[in-house]
Amino acid sequence: MYNFALQMPTKLYFGKGQVFEMGKDIAACAKKVLMVYGGGSIKRNGAYDDACKMLEENGIQWCELSGVRSNPRIESVYEGIRLCRENGLEAILAVGGGSSIDCSKAIAANVHYDGDAWDAIMKHAPQTDKVLPVFTVITLAATGSEMNRNAVISNLELNIKTAIMDDRLTPVATVMDPTYSYSVNAFYTAAGIADIMSHTFENYFSKETDAYAHDRLAEAGLLTCIQQGPVAVKEPENYAARAALMYISPWVINGLTRAGKSCGWSCHPIEHELSAYYDVCHGAGLAIVTPAWMRHILSDATVDKFAEYGVNVWRIDPSLDRYEIANRAIDCTEEFFRSIGLPMTLRELGITEKDKFEEMAQNIDNAFGNAYVVLHKEDVLQILEACF
Amino acid sequence: MYNFALQMPTKLYFGKGQVFEMGKDIAACAKKVLMVYGGGSIKRNGAYDDACKMLEENGIQWCELSGVRSNPRIESVYEGIRLCRENGLEAILAVGGGSSIDCSKAIAANVHYDGDAWDAIMKHAPQTDKVLPVFTVITLAATGSEMNRNAVISNLELNIKTAIMDDRLTPVATVMDPTYSYSVNAFYTAAGIADIMSHTFENYFSKETDAYAHDRLAEAGLLTCIQQGPVAVKEPENYAARAALMYISPWVINGLTRAGKSCGWSCHPIEHELSAYYDVCHGAGLAIVTPAWMRHILSDATVDKFAEYGVNVWRIDPSLDRYEIANRAIDCTEEFFRSIGLPMTLRELGITEKDKFEEMAQNIDNAFGNAYVVLHKEDVLQILEACF
Repeated sequence: MYNFALQMPTKLYFGKGQVFEMGKDIAACAKKVLMVYGGGSIKRNGAYDDACKMLEENGIQWCELSGVRSNPRIESVYEGIRLCRENGLEAILAVGGGSSIDCSKAIAANVHYDGDAWDAIMKHAPQTDKVLPVFTVITLAATGSEMNRNAVISNLELNIKTAIMDDRLTPVATVMDPTYSYSVNAFYTAAGIADIMSHTFENYFSKETDAYAHDRLAEAGLLTCIQQGPVAVKEPENYAARAALMYISPWVINGLTRAGKSCGWSCHPIEHELSAYYDVCHGAGLAIVTPAWMRHILSDATVDKFAEYGVNVWRIDPSLDRYEIANRAIDCTEEFFRSIGLPMTLRELGITEKDKFEEMAQNIDNAFGNAYVVLHKEDVLQILEACF
Repeated sequence: MYNFALQMPTKLYFGKGQVFEMGKDIAACAKKVLMVYGGGSIKRNGAYDDACKMLEENGIQWCELSGVRSNPRIESVYEGIRLCRENGLEAILAVGGGSSIDCSKAIAANVHYDGDAWDAIMKHAPQTDKVLPVFTVITLAATGSEMNRNAVISNLELNIKTAIMDDRLTPVATVMDPTYSYSVNAFYTAAGIADIMSHTFENYFSKETDAYAHDRLAEAGLLTCIQQGPVAVKEPENYAARAALMYISPWVINGLTRAGKSCGWSCHPIEHELSAYYDVCHGAGLAIVTPAWMRHILSDATVDKFAEYGVNVWRIDPSLDRYEIANRAIDCTEEFFRSIGLPMTLRELGITEKDKFEEMAQNIDNAFGNAYVVLHKEDVLQILEACF
């Protein structure tokens, strides 16, 4: 394991009605904020009304940036920056899922930057000393962005989806109210589960074989998804299941299961290409790519880790042959995603042509230097073919 | 699950040589510090020399409070307060295990308090606005105090062992260098493992049955101890095993597995009586009390949780009768503690008379109001008898 520094300063307010607790934290650093959200879902699930009431009660004024789409676009970032500058806004409040949060972070990083925000994003770090504080009210268990330093932004004109990262982008405080996720439909609930599991896999499958505590914690994340995910899909208003997913999602991506491990990601770069070209649902794309990636990299070098996964997560009989365990574990993974209603081919996701595969594979030919198994263009092509 | 707020601001520096990274954090808030430690072990394992060098390199002066014993005494707290006041010290650096850290926190809470420090401890909270920042270099995986807000202090004159708690006592930064724990002997390594497991049990066995993510994370803590604990006991210089124990220990007691659960502790109050009367090793006392407590509270109301524990942690066949699973799980727990070299009776621990049992049980007759199973004086007596 490598040496590392790890800090998770985000204050979590967890539970029904907890948004009102966060008011004092926002008031402590801002009199005027930008509220960032997507479509109408936060107006149906109560999060919008509660957030407005909380701001009012604390004497905080706000402007709104709405219409942030999944795979948040640079155009929304530009719009948010403009609103902050014109109105002297001092903090950002994201209300929604990962897209609203990531858009908020990218805005926060660039309000006080004189250059083009897209340049800062392409440099993967804020290009200014002054970053606005970010607060979040999460309404979907998926991204983990509510408790980490990363934001992923898409530029559909350039077919680029990439990340900006900085400790100062880590939310100051986050509200996790499971009841806000009651209105998330079965498909997006399932896609969120696939996203959480993929974050976990990306860190779990690593060249580091001796990060025992990390890997048991990662398995706890996977088990939570596997056990409570189907409950949330079937019973959207099951508080305990929604709570379990909402609680676990940041911990598999905030460093707890990763710090000190060499963890270049594999499925996310591939999925980011799919989203950049076809604007598919991120979690659904991950669910398709993951089992294909697992099968592609299964070898004598990786079979022990897959067997560990199979025994510890899927409770497969450890006395079986290790390849048997590994293959069963991968089958279980695919079957699980299918069982919660996710499409398992790119065609089901609406990608009916393979004509962009070559270009996408070329784009990320050099993206896997630090990965569990280094992938080259030909590997990515084979994985995409298997997903088709 | 209850609503909760959760924040873990401590910055962790993990790995060999990482103590030198913490210098800048201390220098940012203090020019003169109190270094608190126990006996000679930190001079043998390199932690003392490294800490001194780190302070020197950062131009930080220091005084030393040494001789802090396990079950740290109020007398050491008084002495530390005196040193801080007389020398104008601005922060505390604990180098050692939980005792040095807890003593440091109690000092930090009272340097600027005009009253008697013991009064503040009996009130369980600082009685002043100004609390000194605490930094730690942990040399033993056990307490979790390096990342939480609690400190337990003993007053042997009064036979009282109790806690002072406050967010401001949470260490600002903590160094976890697994090589510093190489010199911990097999007995104290094992006692530390029992301590980590007991912290986990105290939160895991709760009336809350729907904290799914919490409980999978707790099981990850137990599995880490069960799998890597025996390795560390047998191979004291096994970096990966020492690292796993050091990394997992704070997460089972900093709120991650507890927040939102109703978790009145049971074994700790009983063990605190043993320590207060007989000054026994805390972890060893817990290892003895735990299986006896488990057997005492096993009933129709608790058997399902014990069966869950047995299946998920000890991998007992889930198709067995649930009492069979529960009893096997408790046997496994006891057998595990014995296998890592811990005494399993109070007599082995040097407590050869039962004459204080009545008094100890009386002391904590009202300590279990919020516990998984409420214990009364008679229950504690029976548990102590079973431990004898």
